[in-house]
Amino acid sequence: MGFCSEQLQRVAPLWQQMLRHPFLLQTRDGTIPRETFATWMQQDYLFVEAAVPFLAALIPKGPAHHWEPMTQAIGALLRELRLFEERAAAVGVQLRGSRPSFTTHAYIQFLLATAERATYEEAYTVLFAAEKAYHESWKVVQLGLSPGSPWQPFVENWAGATFAAYVTYLEGELDALAGDAGPDLLSRMATAFETTVRYEIAFWEMATTGDSWPGIPASGERW
Amino acid sequence: MGFCSEQLQRVAPLWQQMLRHPFLLQTRDGTIPRETFATWMQQDYLFVEAAVPFLAALIPKGPAHHWEPMTQAIGALLRELRLFEERAAAVGVQLRGSRPSFTTHAYIQFLLATAERATYEEAYTVLFAAEKAYHESWKVVQLGLSPGSPWQPFVENWAGATFAAYVTYLEGELDALAGDAGPDLLSRMATAFETTVRYEIAFWEMATTGDSWPGIPASGERW
Amino acid sequence: MGFCSEQLQRVAPLWQQMLRHPFLLQTRDGTIPRETFATWMQQDYLFVEAAVPFLAALIPKGPAHHWEPMTQAIGALLRELRLFEERAAAVGVQLRGSRPSFTTHAYIQFLLATAERATYEEAYTVLFAAEKAYHESWKVVQLGLSPGSPWQPFVENWAGATFAAYVTYLEGELDALAGDAGPDLLSRMATAFETTVRYEIAFWEMATTGDSWPGIPASGERW
Amino acid sequence: MGFCSEQLQRVAPLWQQMLRHPFLLQTRDGTIPRETFATWMQQDYLFVEAAVPFLAALIPKGPAHHWEPMTQAIGALLRELRLFEERAAAVGVQLRGSRPSFTTHAYIQFLLATAERATYEEAYTVLFAAEKAYHESWKVVQLGLSPGSPWQPFVENWAGATFAAYVTYLEGELDALAGDAGPDLLSRMATAFETTVRYEIAFWEMATTGDSWPGIPASGERW
Repeated sequence: MGFCSEQLQRVAPLWQQMLRHPFLLQTRDGTIPRETFATWMQQDYLFVEAAVPFLAALIPKGPAHHWEPMTQAIGALLRELRLFEERAAAVGVQLRGSRPSFTTHAYIQFLLATAERATYEEAYTVLFAAEKAYHESWKVVQLGLSPGSPWQPFVENWAGATFAAYVTYLEGELDALAGDAGPDLLSRMATAFETTVRYEIAFWEMATTGDSWPGIPASGERW
Repeated sequence: MGFCSEQLQRVAPLWQQMLRHPFLLQTRDGTIPRETFATWMQQDYLFVEAAVPFLAALIPKGPAHHWEPMTQAIGALLRELRLFEERAAAVGVQLRGSRPSFTTHAYIQFLLATAERATYEEAYTVLFAAEKAYHESWKVVQLGLSPGSPWQPFVENWAGATFAAYVTYLEGELDALAGDAGPDLLSRMATAFETTVRYEIAFWEMATTGDSWPGIPASGERW
Repeated sequence: MGFCSEQLQRVAPLWQQMLRHPFLLQTRDGTIPRETFATWMQQDYLFVEAAVPFLAALIPKGPAHHWEPMTQAIGALLRELRLFEERAAAVGVQLRGSRPSFTTHAYIQFLLATAERATYEEAYTVLFAAEKAYHESWKVVQLGLSPGSPWQPFVENWAGATFAAYVTYLEGELDALAGDAGPDLLSRMATAFETTVRYEIAFWEMATTGDSWPGIPASGERW
Repeated sequence: MGFCSEQLQRVAPLWQQMLRHPFLLQTRDGTIPRETFATWMQQDYLFVEAAVPFLAALIPKGPAHHWEPMTQAIGALLRELRLFEERAAAVGVQLRGSRPSFTTHAYIQFLLATAERATYEEAYTVLFAAEKAYHESWKVVQLGLSPGSPWQPFVENWAGATFAAYVTYLEGELDALAGDAGPDLLSRMATAFETTVRYEIAFWEMATTGDSWPGIPASGERW
């Protein structure tokens, strides 16, 4: 069994918790409050904007045969930003100027710090875990979303065949990196995998429960 | 008025909220549950361990006249780690091997990402804000802590004269850096200041309410 | 006058020296020894390979509207590597496994250290200066190269219209960055410009005089 | 045999060439032209200034038990800068404002790029190789330098017992790092070792032959 399958099996309880998160189920069923979905759009837009520097910072650390696919992945992220902007305009959500929630801020810092400080193998693990999580999360939504839903383009983006092929490619490459890794590095990669899943859960949770910071009443928010 | 005074005035409501956090008041009054203080010790030990690379990473970005004081500040952090270890041994708390809470993990990522990605001025702002916050927080505790409390060495460390002089030095240097900064940079420094105060509040909050991750039941904790 | 024009005027003597370097004139006239051109190909291939991480490392530092053009520039570099490989195969030069000369090693370290340690503005200056230098250098070659020369594809690549448009784009963006820069930063950008031109001259010089390291007899080469 | 001994044996011809470089022999014999020594002082001062960020940047990458020794090593470098300033004042050499020679510039870029981009093990190899080279080089000078020479303080600094103990410590730690390294990493460490020795030779060579840049007549120097 490859590293990715092993990790998915190891964190299966967390993974399942992620896939049955109310945000996904309510989006699928069309019962998600519009404001909740808007919060997610605003916060995820900030996250995708941070994912571009994350990917770019990986290129200098990776093998030359990863340069072209990683460059294409950056191109895909840039198109994803356009998708957010187009959807936000379509449904009247203000994207720009949002303040990052605590969870968004933390997840972005995690991406940036990982890109700079962790090994390529750990950072690639974060990339795979986050993309795999989005692919499977939006496949959950896909299994019931009304065809006329304004969120269909998100489903098409992350649950679709192109993204599926990208995730499969990442899995193969990550399994290969893990195959060359010693026990210490493998252990750190496993931690990176689980931490990413935890952040993914925290992200859906934040979209649902609001974008506040711990210990600060909403009225104190000014950042 | 210097930059630091301006910022302290601007974020005064947050700052006051920090200084009257139950963790500080209960520690001062000797009513803090032992387990709560132990959680703080374990989590802050992780944080101080991460502050060493944070400071070290600032040296290459800073002016030459900051190199020696910053090197001494690293030495102080290393002694701080010994203080934690000594106190933990004295009261029977297991320091090593703790898992970072969500807030600790996030704050550490913020430190590391700031050291790598932000300007020196922003990173220096984070340093000052965090040290100033600790100095004033432990002065709150100092105003009532029983002389025989096992936490007196922490008070002596952060509320004492040496640390006070260090914080005053940082304030002078940060005011000087701000004096040379244009409006864009000043705005980013102000954001860094407020964000650090928010993380400080979140840290006391986490020590009080526990080290869980959002959306994950405690029983699911394995990391 | 924009920053780029100013710099080109300021370093005009160096720039002219670069453009009349024997390597360029001999390549133009078809008198360049095959081995000299092969040395250049091997060393420049190493350089272009290092330019990919250089560009990628700039993305996280730059404004969002630079992300897409920079990503496309990486794609162009990847095609440039294929051009080297195709030309090397066509004329029987072994590209892979070459040892970097002192000058190539130094220039690559300069790129990498600049990407990591310098401001975005300085790094962008290095990028523009190097690309402008190559564009004008190969236009010198273009003015006399035999149509059947095996080096025509290099001329088409760097002296052609697509590359010219890219250099013009870089110039506009760099002028805009300089327009927002204070005197200290402008001074460092000017140094980065001149240093890059010096490295470009050193590179042609190395291709002509050989790939040795200072103070080490060729027989001692083993690296 | 440990990694360091192996490497010293492997690059013995280069190492011997370094130790019998005219700069060292002429300094030992008191026949070095004052201007040549002044060039070395100016260029090495620039180098030591760059070594401070190099060491600091290693701290975040290294194990916690290296933090304190590395912090002390930074302190030693700061004292070394004072030594240069004191000696320069004593013999009337202007230290500040020197332009880096090509070799100094290149060596500094190598340090900075290594600190950022290479593994900790490779960077530690560069550190050991450079310090070991200086220790042995100045021991050569020590074996004949007139007691009244103004350069005695340099001999005392690098050929003395404190520095010898530091180099021995570095060797032990580097051997331990190498003991945990796989074949790929060991190969890169070996390259880092040899490259550093090459830069050391280039540095003595530059001090002797002058601080020009390749292909640029001295009259064109303005940087």
